[in-house]
Amino acid sequence: MNKKGGVDMDKLSIGFIGTGVMGGSIVKHLLAAGHKVTVYTRSKHKAMPLIEAGANWADTPAQVAKSADVVMTMVGYPSDVEEVYYGDEGIFQSCKEGQIVIDLTTSSPSLAKRIAKDAAEKGMSSLDAPVSGGDIGAQNGTLSIMCGGDEKTFEHMLPLLQVFGKQIVYQGEAGAGQHTKMSNQIAIATNMIGVCEALIYAKRAGLDANKVLQSISSGAAGSWSLSNLSPRMLKGDFEPGFFVKHFLKDMKIALKEAEEMSLPLPGLRLAKEMYEELVNDGYGDKGTQVLFQSYER
Amino acid sequence: MNKKGGVDMDKLSIGFIGTGVMGGSIVKHLLAAGHKVTVYTRSKHKAMPLIEAGANWADTPAQVAKSADVVMTMVGYPSDVEEVYYGDEGIFQSCKEGQIVIDLTTSSPSLAKRIAKDAAEKGMSSLDAPVSGGDIGAQNGTLSIMCGGDEKTFEHMLPLLQVFGKQIVYQGEAGAGQHTKMSNQIAIATNMIGVCEALIYAKRAGLDANKVLQSISSGAAGSWSLSNLSPRMLKGDFEPGFFVKHFLKDMKIALKEAEEMSLPLPGLRLAKEMYEELVNDGYGDKGTQVLFQSYER
Repeated sequence: MNKKGGVDMDKLSIGFIGTGVMGGSIVKHLLAAGHKVTVYTRSKHKAMPLIEAGANWADTPAQVAKSADVVMTMVGYPSDVEEVYYGDEGIFQSCKEGQIVIDLTTSSPSLAKRIAKDAAEKGMSSLDAPVSGGDIGAQNGTLSIMCGGDEKTFEHMLPLLQVFGKQIVYQGEAGAGQHTKMSNQIAIATNMIGVCEALIYAKRAGLDANKVLQSISSGAAGSWSLSNLSPRMLKGDFEPGFFVKHFLKDMKIALKEAEEMSLPLPGLRLAKEMYEELVNDGYGDKGTQVLFQSYER
Repeated sequence: MNKKGGVDMDKLSIGFIGTGVMGGSIVKHLLAAGHKVTVYTRSKHKAMPLIEAGANWADTPAQVAKSADVVMTMVGYPSDVEEVYYGDEGIFQSCKEGQIVIDLTTSSPSLAKRIAKDAAEKGMSSLDAPVSGGDIGAQNGTLSIMCGGDEKTFEHMLPLLQVFGKQIVYQGEAGAGQHTKMSNQIAIATNMIGVCEALIYAKRAGLDANKVLQSISSGAAGSWSLSNLSPRMLKGDFEPGFFVKHFLKDMKIALKEAEEMSLPLPGLRLAKEMYEELVNDGYGDKGTQVLFQSYER
């Protein structure tokens, strides 16, 4: 038995709120590792495959929290995170001393700090632990997890995070995980513009864009997005790996945080405006590579 | 003996104009491969190490061209390319039928087309063959070479290009090499903004930027620039791998070509404005990673 703090790490009772594409895959890993998992998600039918795989169901976040050692949340927007923690049927209605809450949602650093403060006041611990690596990373249990919060809690929870994560880095106090994820999204946002502009230039210049990728992908112009999203752009495949609407949410959080630091980020602002236009034009449920459409039309 | 076209590929007489950091390394590879190389560069003293290594010296581009099977050029700006080909002492003053000219400079696609047309009228062949891979790629002979021009000439010259290049792709008719290089620079330009903004955000948020890089470099935010230039930015090392002034030249060429295609590239425009400001502020001889300074000051 591997008992640390007050929690038996070998077989935890875990509450998991939000079983979408990402959350669902993570729950499967937790079940496979032998943990008891109780789930809640807005539309119960989405959780059915997990219930069939051995998860318990609870009717509210508060009920999920009632008997769990650790409660994990992975929902959509900061407003959802707020509801799940602070709502009338939220986690904080029924939680108890010694419990640990971990928010895996990409959400606002300010909200992560507020949750941490309120959790501490109730004798609980919290981590903000947004992930990257997409649906494939979640399926394979190879997510990058960026953690903020109390360092001892991080160390305590590390074996649990290792069940579904690979690159797991403690980034600092509460909010630092979310800030790191914002830094990640900022790097992606502006690069997406560069990738689209390189491709559209190549096409308009009459080049074979796939040959151009042969020349430029492995050098100083190389990036994950150029290698992974350009081929989809060129094929006109705009199915979502990562939703435009969620990416826009992240950019808005990052810009708001940057504004509070009085930090102008013109590249991020440009990307946010371009993606906002895509959402307004009805592309919110497409993949982020649909930005290429903005240049093609 | 490996005789193709009119040129004995085993031992060519090569003229090389422009022996800077990149050109100098390429000449060394050509000499090492057993070719006879005659060089010219604006300041003779810069060619001395090559002359000591066995290269011949000529006093003008015209003299270089006089006895060469193949003339290669690698100078600074399109205006330098123009001078070297069309000037009073330029290549076209003394060239002869059957000769091949290859411009390795990153220059304007329009100028490449003009050179190709004029070369053809004189019974010569030409390639535009800009490279990427930087000083290290030139030293190691592992450059990426993006080629435009007549395809037979490309195939004929391929063994020669393989002496200093690794990823060598024929991109299409005259100008296609330069257009491909423009696409490369466009992808880099906007991504540089994203890299800087991700890092400055991380620093201002109070994070340890090196730890943030651990979390984000290998995922969807990953890029050559993030991995290779961020560490220099964080150390305040702004020594040139690639000069700001040359990068600005490339962006101006790309924007001009895009304008002629009526193609708006807002990301590239933003990058060009930011780098222009750096040049105006005296940073033209720094490396492109000095863009980070624009956010720090």
